Amino acid sequence: MAERRIALKFAYDGSGFYGFQRQPERITIEGELVRALTKVGAIKSARECGYRSSSRTDRGVSALANVISIKTSFLTAQLCSAINSEMDGVWAYSAVEVPDDFNPRAAKQRWYRYYLARAGQNPEILRELASRFEGVHDFSGYARKDKRNPMRKIDSIEVFESDMFYLLDFRAESFLWNMVRRIVWMVNEGSSGRMPLESIGPKPSSKPIRVGLAPPEYLVLMDIDCGVKFPTDPKALLGISRSLARRMREHAVMVEFVRSLLDSL
Amino acid sequence: MAERRIALKFAYDGSGFYGFQRQPERITIEGELVRALTKVGAIKSARECGYRSSSRTDRGVSALANVISIKTSFLTAQLCSAINSEMDGVWAYSAVEVPDDFNPRAAKQRWYRYYLARAGQNPEILRELASRFEGVHDFSGYARKDKRNPMRKIDSIEVFESDMFYLLDFRAESFLWNMVRRIVWMVNEGSSGRMPLESIGPKPSSKPIRVGLAPPEYLVLMDIDCGVKFPTDPKALLGISRSLARRMREHAVMVEFVRSLLDSL
Repeated sequence: MAERRIALKFAYDGSGFYGFQRQPERITIEGELVRALTKVGAIKSARECGYRSSSRTDRGVSALANVISIKTSFLTAQLCSAINSEMDGVWAYSAVEVPDDFNPRAAKQRWYRYYLARAGQNPEILRELASRFEGVHDFSGYARKDKRNPMRKIDSIEVFESDMFYLLDFRAESFLWNMVRRIVWMVNEGSSGRMPLESIGPKPSSKPIRVGLAPPEYLVLMDIDCGVKFPTDPKALLGISRSLARRMREHAVMVEFVRSLLDSL
Repeated sequence: MAERRIALKFAYDGSGFYGFQRQPERITIEGELVRALTKVGAIKSARECGYRSSSRTDRGVSALANVISIKTSFLTAQLCSAINSEMDGVWAYSAVEVPDDFNPRAAKQRWYRYYLARAGQNPEILRELASRFEGVHDFSGYARKDKRNPMRKIDSIEVFESDMFYLLDFRAESFLWNMVRRIVWMVNEGSSGRMPLESIGPKPSSKPIRVGLAPPEYLVLMDIDCGVKFPTDPKALLGISRSLARRMREHAVMVEFVRSLLDSL
């Protein structure tokens, strides 16, 4: 088959990896994908296949949906199931042909969800503080310094409640490095009464304050809108749903286990 | 302080270890305990401290309560919190003085819980099949062959239901190797309609049948009755409850993560 550009959508459990980006001697999500794509013969190497990625999530962060793009002559309908059998903790579930100028980095919107453990926060204050970060702001106080423009527009921050967590849903075209985790840390401090409310917001206060970083294990990249439809590959789904169900049960047992232990002590 | 014999009660998350028993080059639960006890100066080595253990759980099995015994001159009230700061995934929460002839291996009763994933089993049949194994039987068909007497008495097998699991609670003075997991495998096959009911029971059938092994990740050693009271050490509890709560939340997030993924596909 002729070589075309393919966009690949996939999920991963970040806890088993040293982050997204390839690193020598480390198991990373990108490394696992490139290894599997090479193993099945879809690409020769990352360098030669016009590899492009969308979101470089931090170490410990998981994703329901991240996107990469490669050039390959591998059969599109076979690609997901072929590489899934070579990967552990990364699950590809959609592959579509895209124009050659397709770049997943230039996404229309990214959606992140943070699972903030309930620990006596005031939910009204939490919602109000979160809303302060919506819209266009200079987020340099909430990101690691780099050369990028610190102006960003957060389309929305929604707050939902579950048994154990507040779910904070962030939507924006793009985020600065660590930006979501720093905002979460800040609104958590404020809604827990550990920080004066007037000091919380995207505008850097006159007195610079140390903004902490919420832990990465509770952050999930939920979806990326690249302007492309990604229909789920039924063959890939069949292959991964059993391993996902087992993984869910194993974590559910550990929740029960630790809960019983805490109750028994 | 003078040397006394101490019994130590502790919990562990089996998923991070190569089983219970010490092995060279492997991280095991016993190895972690001995390392921590040596590090804090409570013992010189496992050989010189009159080390005795109760239950050698298989690789992957967790415990709310397992027991070892050592001779030490370390202050009893300080022992748990001292070793907890040296261990990851093992949590000591009770230390008591015991007579020198105390042997935790000779326990009165052990209680194991198996979390059997709900997958269309008939709960009435499951209960009935489980009850066939109660009482005194020759369990040689349900254990790896070794030199031990295959006669065992199961005091009770209770079946409870939760959202995702059937909880099977086994109580007996002692079990043969793999016995619980083989019984679980068998009653699961029977209650799922994959095995003729008349072939299920402790009595070896005339035609020998292959008895499989249910996976270890769903088995938890819940408690051991050594005839000794183990009051929870308040200082140790304070130290471990935060790390346990964090571990519970991390697993809960992964349950939510995989559930969302399965729902979204």
